[in-house]
Amino acid sequence: MRTCRKPSSAPLAAFLLVNAVSALKDDGMEELASEKEAEESHRQDSVNLLTFILLLTLTILTIWLFKRRRVRFLHETGLAMIYGLLVGVILRYGIPATSYHHKTPPSCTLKEGPASTLLLNVSGKFFEYTLKGEINSREIQNVEQNDMLRKVTFDPEVFFNILLPPIIFHAGYSLKKRHFFRNLGSIITYAFIGTATSCFVIGNLMYGVVKLMQLVGQLTEKFYYTDCLFFGAIISATDPVTVLAIFNELHADGDLYALLFGESVMNDAVAIVLSSSIVAYQPSGANTHMFDASAFFKSVGVFLGIFSGSFVMGAATGVVTFTKLHCFPLLETALFFLMSWSTFLLAEACGFTGVVAVLFCGITQAHYTYNNLSDESTKRTKQLFEVLHFLAENFIFSYMGLALFTFQNHIFSPIFIIGAFFAIFIGRALNIYPLSFLLNLGKRHKIRGNFQHMMMFAGLRGAMAFALAIRDTATYARQMMFTTTLLIVFFTVWVFGGGTTPMLSCENDYVYVFFQDGSQTEGQSKTKQESAWLFRQWYTFDHNYLKPILTHSGPPLTSTLPSYCGLLASCLTSPQAYESHEQLTDPDADLIRGDADLTFTFSDTAILTNGADAAFASGGSGWSANGKRSGSTSEEALERETDSREQELLSRGTRLVFPIEDHI
Amino acid sequence: MRTCRKPSSAPLAAFLLVNAVSALKDDGMEELASEKEAEESHRQDSVNLLTFILLLTLTILTIWLFKRRRVRFLHETGLAMIYGLLVGVILRYGIPATSYHHKTPPSCTLKEGPASTLLLNVSGKFFEYTLKGEINSREIQNVEQNDMLRKVTFDPEVFFNILLPPIIFHAGYSLKKRHFFRNLGSIITYAFIGTATSCFVIGNLMYGVVKLMQLVGQLTEKFYYTDCLFFGAIISATDPVTVLAIFNELHADGDLYALLFGESVMNDAVAIVLSSSIVAYQPSGANTHMFDASAFFKSVGVFLGIFSGSFVMGAATGVVTFTKLHCFPLLETALFFLMSWSTFLLAEACGFTGVVAVLFCGITQAHYTYNNLSDESTKRTKQLFEVLHFLAENFIFSYMGLALFTFQNHIFSPIFIIGAFFAIFIGRALNIYPLSFLLNLGKRHKIRGNFQHMMMFAGLRGAMAFALAIRDTATYARQMMFTTTLLIVFFTVWVFGGGTTPMLSCENDYVYVFFQDGSQTEGQSKTKQESAWLFRQWYTFDHNYLKPILTHSGPPLTSTLPSYCGLLASCLTSPQAYESHEQLTDPDADLIRGDADLTFTFSDTAILTNGADAAFASGGSGWSANGKRSGSTSEEALERETDSREQELLSRGTRLVFPIEDHI
Repeated sequence: MRTCRKPSSAPLAAFLLVNAVSALKDDGMEELASEKEAEESHRQDSVNLLTFILLLTLTILTIWLFKRRRVRFLHETGLAMIYGLLVGVILRYGIPATSYHHKTPPSCTLKEGPASTLLLNVSGKFFEYTLKGEINSREIQNVEQNDMLRKVTFDPEVFFNILLPPIIFHAGYSLKKRHFFRNLGSIITYAFIGTATSCFVIGNLMYGVVKLMQLVGQLTEKFYYTDCLFFGAIISATDPVTVLAIFNELHADGDLYALLFGESVMNDAVAIVLSSSIVAYQPSGANTHMFDASAFFKSVGVFLGIFSGSFVMGAATGVVTFTKLHCFPLLETALFFLMSWSTFLLAEACGFTGVVAVLFCGITQAHYTYNNLSDESTKRTKQLFEVLHFLAENFIFSYMGLALFTFQNHIFSPIFIIGAFFAIFIGRALNIYPLSFLLNLGKRHKIRGNFQHMMMFAGLRGAMAFALAIRDTATYARQMMFTTTLLIVFFTVWVFGGGTTPMLSCENDYVYVFFQDGSQTEGQSKTKQESAWLFRQWYTFDHNYLKPILTHSGPPLTSTLPSYCGLLASCLTSPQAYESHEQLTDPDADLIRGDADLTFTFSDTAILTNGADAAFASGGSGWSANGKRSGSTSEEALERETDSREQELLSRGTRLVFPIEDHI
Repeated sequence: MRTCRKPSSAPLAAFLLVNAVSALKDDGMEELASEKEAEESHRQDSVNLLTFILLLTLTILTIWLFKRRRVRFLHETGLAMIYGLLVGVILRYGIPATSYHHKTPPSCTLKEGPASTLLLNVSGKFFEYTLKGEINSREIQNVEQNDMLRKVTFDPEVFFNILLPPIIFHAGYSLKKRHFFRNLGSIITYAFIGTATSCFVIGNLMYGVVKLMQLVGQLTEKFYYTDCLFFGAIISATDPVTVLAIFNELHADGDLYALLFGESVMNDAVAIVLSSSIVAYQPSGANTHMFDASAFFKSVGVFLGIFSGSFVMGAATGVVTFTKLHCFPLLETALFFLMSWSTFLLAEACGFTGVVAVLFCGITQAHYTYNNLSDESTKRTKQLFEVLHFLAENFIFSYMGLALFTFQNHIFSPIFIIGAFFAIFIGRALNIYPLSFLLNLGKRHKIRGNFQHMMMFAGLRGAMAFALAIRDTATYARQMMFTTTLLIVFFTVWVFGGGTTPMLSCENDYVYVFFQDGSQTEGQSKTKQESAWLFRQWYTFDHNYLKPILTHSGPPLTSTLPSYCGLLASCLTSPQAYESHEQLTDPDADLIRGDADLTFTFSDTAILTNGADAAFASGGSGWSANGKRSGSTSEEALERETDSREQELLSRGTRLVFPIEDHI
């Protein structure tokens, strides 16, 4: 008899892994016992994966029920977590510990450290073994007792490399681009300075909590300052999920939406890179956990290097995806998908962060590539990524529910948990309010107090915080962080994710009026003057040069470049640009709300888009008549955009969808 | 220094695997060397996966070019293989053997046989190792020399569990269902008796070849009769890929198309199960490779058990997917996807063949579930599976090209290869001609000689044969089979896949007239009488009972069930059926050609469908007027279908798409 303890790999990964094991049966080993074991193991893996799929199926059916009955007190991700919790309870307490594997695996001793591959010599035959990881001595005990629970435990890297990319890409791809660029300054401020602030505030507060715990005698194992900072970084990543849900309810202004959504997307990117930099902070010498200036600056360098590298890589691939495969939507869609994936891999291959690269790839592709796609392909790509995103997100959230009961190294520390709740609250507050104050100093269109409160509470934690926390649960400190992160995600998703919408609906009139007021009467009339100088520069450059080069839309380069560049300009301009720049489509209109309201959106935005397009096209036809109008066009375009946006806003607010006449 | 030889896992699997390894760096091991190694390995994996993605990208771009320039001498899968070959050559000869891992992995000795998991004790710390497989002594040498080539080698089970399911599902989902069911008898005959014949003929011929090789002294290692039969089974799986391409060119009759496509899809299923049964053939006692009646019947039992089990499971899940999630296309699509996947897993968990289950799931879902989906979802699901299928197929084919140079255990045996080419030719001939003769005895609508030749040559080998062959390459015999299979796939795809279309185009007039003649003047007028009794029974039952219960279309049960079942009938009938049975849509029309012509199809079939629908709806409205007309309706429905089909055929043949008037 031989034991066959399954390693702690994920069903998905294990599915691949174990198939390798099951392939053994033909591999020359004639032993029936081993064959049966492999088959049993393969079956077990199928059952585990099936569990997750049925969980997702159940979630989908319930979401449908909720949507039909207009239940709104719970967000769908909260629902997925509840189902996950239930299944976790069943797995933990409902199923007796599996009995068919109950022996300790054989062990052998070597003097040298662990190699990736080990050869085992059994009476002349060689077998190849791959390193899975180190095992704590207490885990060796655990393992034998509770095989089942270990089996439903995923390889943490699956979250990072398989499930996060579609979620993040989708977020980038559905960013409201015009509003995003217009608010780029504020978004970057919140994302960089805000997240760093939040990280340091939380880190320091938690260090205080840890000291307190040591005083009280609640903490016996090591918990360094860098661990606290790491916790600050992972817990500063806010989730954009419910931002979409809330804003869909409120029909709020595009600028505010872009600010909130942009901030929550970008701070994910910052949080990842920040956490890598903190891990990279390894002071040399004796005091390995004290402050060391050179190590600190090295960390800052790592942060800047990884972030800018990932950014450049993502943006570059997004720009390169210069598809001309019109009329072949299948090929276009496949190409689009492959290019996005290759961004991820390229970044990983270069040592950057794939997830961050994918985010910027999504933003760039939405800005440029989207214009090159055929109508059929725009729909297809949007739908493809929508499905991937939907499945990945619900999978992560139901896994979170499951993990609360099936993860075997939870460390619940009441003081740490309570401290963390306070810390994230204070951290968020010190992120939002002071920065808003500073930003308001330089802004005419102020970020109002009401909206600041909203940003404060919309910062719930989700998939990213979880993926970062589960990535490393080797030490005591990390295990405690993981447990705490999980609880914080539960709390914020259930309370803020489900609760915000009804809460805001109660004071609906007030909020609604506020937003209408903020965005339309005061805001919109001043948009033109307010749009920052930098943004206008960027817009002009992008509109006159980048868009014509990279897409088939926009004014032909021949009309925007100085006349002495004539030859170059005509080389770079797509032949379609001459024909199509009259009907320059608004690439944003139908993207923005695609996710929020999963279904009804489609038909009504289609009409809205037409309306906006029509308005825009009629406005835009000035170019073809006048031939050349560079430079000043940006202002006009901005105004036109504002107009069409306003119409859209109005029709959204009232939910009355009607064909909009031209309005020159 | 420690070595870090990568195991022969796939980039995809390795990607997951190695991430586990790279997660080690935080796992408590503080050694920088190991960390760097893990990082290096992770990077290397990203690069490998990137290679494949760039290969696919290149393929897509070339396909696009070919499509635009109407190049037809090469099928796209043939193209993917060529690119794979080129990259394989570069990897093999262009890159010097990697030098950063050049040590033999450490080995340790145990008395007991290999366990799945091994613990390694390095000075008190325990590390967990997973069994990868046995290594031949010559491979240990290989491994060290050529790390790079091993790295691009996939885990064979990836093909079977990740890449085949979408391909097979798509084939099932796009089967021309009405014609498929009408020709079910012939298809099943070809698939079961034909494939078994082919398998045994090839197996026996190859056994002769093997004997010859032993005589000549070309074969020194063991090669059993069961190995020959196994080869017969895997090489009998024909690929439906080019069948689609060819028929799209010829605008051939639906019945002939269904026969050919159905045969090539179904024989994949038979071939898989047949090969498992041959592997399961293990006579007990001393003569382990002689004939043993009990073992033989056990194998037959295994075949029947696995096949029927997989069939039932697939059909059941297909029927169960009883979606009512109208208005929520995203949810519907996600649910549809999950249900199909869970079929695969469920079958694997029960010890059946997932791929076969997925095939029947696809067929059933296209027949029933498709009718329940909203318009939006029908498009979405079709497009989603189209993309998955397209990517998976091109991936497999480019991998095949790559494998010719990167697979390290090729055994090229000229006699075996030449013998195999003759054997598959003879095997196919003895499958098609005698069976066609027998089938023609009972048919009025004969399968003509010309069409038989066509079936003979359309039987090219593809993804399935490859996946079955690579699944096990442990022994000398299996390695020789793998090499031979690869060459046969190359030859048939390049010659038949690329060559058939232009060849047939040359004699286009002849073939075209033949098909028109065969299907229309003689065939169609007799369809009513010819359609087999069994088919008519099935059609009546399906149309009157199954469709109303399982879909929202079809006549309400209240009108088809006897009056004493009134209560039951009204419970089971969907409320929509009452409203919608007048406009009973033809679910086939737009499915059939969806794959063939990747792009232009969409718009013109849409119109065709409308035409067919209109005709059908107007014909079908007789029901609502007369209330109850069970039993006899099937004949009428058949006729109506034939009519509308004929119209469709005509408009297809001439490529003139016009709205068809009602024609009662």
